[in-house]
Amino acid sequence: QIDSARLWGSIHETAQFGGTAKGGVRRLTLSSEDKQVRDWFRKACEDAGLDVHTDALGSQFGLRKGRDMTKLPVGIGSHLDTQPTGGKYDGILGTLGALEVIRTLNDAGIETEAPICVVNWTNEEGSRFAPAMMASAAYVGDFTTDDILSRKDIDGTSVSQALDSIGYRGDKPVGFQKLGCFVELHIEQGPILEAEGKTIGVVDSGQGVLWYDGKISGFESHAGSTPMPLRRDALATLSEIVLAMEAIAKKHGPKAVGTIGEAVIANPSRNVIPGEIAFTMDCRSADGAIMDALDRDLRAAIAEIAARRKVEVKIDLVWRKPPTHFDPKLIAAVENAAKTLGYSSRRITSGAGHDACNLNTVMPAAMVFVPCKDGISHNELEDATQPDCAAGTNVLMHTVLAIAGV
Amino acid sequence: QIDSARLWGSIHETAQFGGTAKGGVRRLTLSSEDKQVRDWFRKACEDAGLDVHTDALGSQFGLRKGRDMTKLPVGIGSHLDTQPTGGKYDGILGTLGALEVIRTLNDAGIETEAPICVVNWTNEEGSRFAPAMMASAAYVGDFTTDDILSRKDIDGTSVSQALDSIGYRGDKPVGFQKLGCFVELHIEQGPILEAEGKTIGVVDSGQGVLWYDGKISGFESHAGSTPMPLRRDALATLSEIVLAMEAIAKKHGPKAVGTIGEAVIANPSRNVIPGEIAFTMDCRSADGAIMDALDRDLRAAIAEIAARRKVEVKIDLVWRKPPTHFDPKLIAAVENAAKTLGYSSRRITSGAGHDACNLNTVMPAAMVFVPCKDGISHNELEDATQPDCAAGTNVLMHTVLAIAGV
Ligand SMILES: NC(=O)NCCC(=O)O
Ligand SMILES: NC(=O)NCCC(=O)O
Repeated sequence: QIDSARLWGSIHETAQFGGTAKGGVRRLTLSSEDKQVRDWFRKACEDAGLDVHTDALGSQFGLRKGRDMTKLPVGIGSHLDTQPTGGKYDGILGTLGALEVIRTLNDAGIETEAPICVVNWTNEEGSRFAPAMMASAAYVGDFTTDDILSRKDIDGTSVSQALDSIGYRGDKPVGFQKLGCFVELHIEQGPILEAEGKTIGVVDSGQGVLWYDGKISGFESHAGSTPMPLRRDALATLSEIVLAMEAIAKKHGPKAVGTIGEAVIANPSRNVIPGEIAFTMDCRSADGAIMDALDRDLRAAIAEIAARRKVEVKIDLVWRKPPTHFDPKLIAAVENAAKTLGYSSRRITSGAGHDACNLNTVMPAAMVFVPCKDGISHNELEDATQPDCAAGTNVLMHTVLAIAGV
Repeated sequence: QIDSARLWGSIHETAQFGGTAKGGVRRLTLSSEDKQVRDWFRKACEDAGLDVHTDALGSQFGLRKGRDMTKLPVGIGSHLDTQPTGGKYDGILGTLGALEVIRTLNDAGIETEAPICVVNWTNEEGSRFAPAMMASAAYVGDFTTDDILSRKDIDGTSVSQALDSIGYRGDKPVGFQKLGCFVELHIEQGPILEAEGKTIGVVDSGQGVLWYDGKISGFESHAGSTPMPLRRDALATLSEIVLAMEAIAKKHGPKAVGTIGEAVIANPSRNVIPGEIAFTMDCRSADGAIMDALDRDLRAAIAEIAARRKVEVKIDLVWRKPPTHFDPKLIAAVENAAKTLGYSSRRITSGAGHDACNLNTVMPAAMVFVPCKDGISHNELEDATQPDCAAGTNVLMHTVLAIAGV
């Protein structure tokens, strides 16, 4: 059994780094708040006897020796960055839960056969730099390190510059730390476990993701003197796209979602018809055929709207992550750990993307979910209970022990 | 006849102050670019022998003596500030045209019975500070000077601070310069004169304006894991409001327009459902009953959308300017000047608001319109021909001579 109070203490101690008035956390990746939590995490890992290294994209790896160092380590962890309106648990539970597993094994003097590696992946959230789960994607070879280093945030700062500015461009190449498998603990970020009164979600699959960058070019013109029929209004165009996206996701529902999270009017003014808008789109489904249908329907709807409104709309698919099907053996290990520990559980699909989804493309991976209040996440009100967090961490530990061997 | 080349020269010389790559002008009120054009204008007025003063809101007044100084001056002029994506003519033609009238009278040695006063009104555009036509509204007593001084731009800078930062808080109280009437030359900012091949628009009326500040409070939540039916999406709400506004304006058309020019998502992120959006609305009609209907329909539509989407929408009416009906005698004077000079003309309603509309509430006022290319305004591509600008300025001069007396 892990130390529930110690785990809870580290979650709340680190929540001060970027803590907000509403009780949430604003800790964008590679920001000064992210540096604070990284410093804390490095020290905590070193204090727990881990050998800590940072790779060229800033991901932190803390290795605990196993009896058989020819075996590849069991990877555990998640991320410590948050959304602009983020909570105290998303990613953090999985990273500090992994640390708690190490601390518990240390206290109990338990040595494992295979080594264990705790990981804090850089930029899981994807709100400052696209794509999400950026560093784990580079780790599995979906992108080159140089490509990722050149990605820019909205202010034009590159990943490379951001890493240097907080001193977290590590000296190890991406991929330096080989892993044999990866298990990630996370809050569900959805309403199912809570609604069904289950403590553990055994994650067997994850939604695929489509991310687009869009740009609407209409025509700026006077709000008072331009007759309605002559307008080429970029905001009215965006509005139709937002509602079309909603309708398309509902049509393919319940196994699909679609969101426009960002939209910026260029040179806005009260009495000017918006002429140019940049926006982004996020579509998801756990079913690859539905993802294709979402893409097709969305493009058709946008083409129709643009033609009718005599406005140009450009859409770039900037990220396509296929649906995830986690490793059957690891899924069974998680399920078994929950059962042994006496927690209620159910199989579940992840609505969100996770680093484990990337790792699963090159090694066996699995995930453990615990409930979060009202399914709320990416919101400062995100909440989870201490017993649930402890339960998830216990399941993580027992899964690791089963895989690593005692 | 005014000096067409000299007028054209001053328009293009001052267009450098805030000139943009696309050939437009970005000269927000009380910005450093606005200071540059104000300095230029003060010197030009002084060089033309005018007695120049600035009032507490930064409006510039240049007085040319008349034979009978007991008579109130004939006011002419407009504004030199522009939209973020503004052109070279909106406001500028009327202000530099007024200067050109003075220069022409000087050259011809013409003395008028009543004095003439050239005015550059502060913040006509209303894009940095609301409302539009701010200084002329204070001049006629719609707002107190202190109220206007306290208005803030999006960065929190007040009118008062902005005036001081460019050294244009004048030592004269607002209203110090009494005027007997006001005539404003302007580009049409609409397509009618050009389409009908008329040179002069004799403006007999102007649309009323409703400006609102709006705020939508939905709920931030994860784009991947929040099922469509559980969302309280602020952007989808805004989208419905934008399209409802468009439909309502069309329903009351052609005598109504409605625009949402500004909308800002708080803490935007690709994978977060927008939770909070601030926006503005602009509705207009030349018919007071239609204005009331627009307000009523809009509020009803917004209430229905908000209730259905379980989202809070707050709407504040921040400005209500009733329709304008210009002075019949001055309208006739403009019409007569156009006829005498041999220009084709027609009566016209102004779609845009103008300082003359404010002045008309306390003194006789009128306006002269000239065509602009494709009716385009509040756009960097705004354009007008040299002969049309000269024609409008000639009509302005002959109207002034008729009113002031020679
Ligand atoms: N777990 C999580 O919130 N990931 C962020 C990436 C995404 O799914 O949008
Ligand atoms: N003339 C003009 O464009 N005025 C700006 C104020 C408005 O009508 O919105």
